[in-house]
Amino acid sequence: MKIQNYRQVEPIKAAPGVTMRVVAGPAEKTPTFVMRVFEIESGCSTPFHAHPWEHEVFVLEGKGILKGGGKETPLMEGDAVVVLPNEQHSFLGIGKGTFRLICVVPLVDGKMPGMPAKD
Amino acid sequence: MKIQNYRQVEPIKAAPGVTMRVVAGPAEKTPTFVMRVFEIESGCSTPFHAHPWEHEVFVLEGKGILKGGGKETPLMEGDAVVVLPNEQHSFLGIGKGTFRLICVVPLVDGKMPGMPAKD
Repeated sequence: MKIQNYRQVEPIKAAPGVTMRVVAGPAEKTPTFVMRVFEIESGCSTPFHAHPWEHEVFVLEGKGILKGGGKETPLMEGDAVVVLPNEQHSFLGIGKGTFRLICVVPLVDGKMPGMPAKD
Repeated sequence: MKIQNYRQVEPIKAAPGVTMRVVAGPAEKTPTFVMRVFEIESGCSTPFHAHPWEHEVFVLEGKGILKGGGKETPLMEGDAVVVLPNEQHSFLGIGKGTFRLICVVPLVDGKMPGMPAKD
């Protein structure tokens, strides 16, 4: 059992203007999946990409856009997003302030799967 | 790909004073794990119990206490909690307002594992 506030976790640069904090993962010996907190600056985004694992996302704060499924969908606090394996997607921060979200991914071969730096 | 605000999801009574909304799970064909939003009224709690699957929890709002590991630990917004398999635990709402948290669990045999009604 481990408790930590996400603000105490060192952020990792995941993409330009995008940081990631791993709040529950291999360091906590989680058996199945990994919880991360992302902060995306306005005008910045995660790469438009696809991968064999799923995302389950929950928007904590701020405004953003999900690009995927052939459209762009606005996101706000309280929105839950399921991105299934191999669906192309990108999360973009918009508006004032930081776009903050939780993104959960499965462990793949016992490790947190990586996010490519580019498309 | 599916987007829905948790407020649009029908709450299920999980325990007295405790509701659960499944925001990402079997209905969305998630392959590995399930994301739920719990609301716990002040003075109410989930049962003190253990099970073979893990929890990854993120506190959205309000104040609570995690009972487990032989102690009671206060919880606040932004706290991430890992409860490993077979660790006894209970989440209790305290203070004013609703204690709201995300709780992610793995699928077990393709289904969301249940929460017993009692200890």
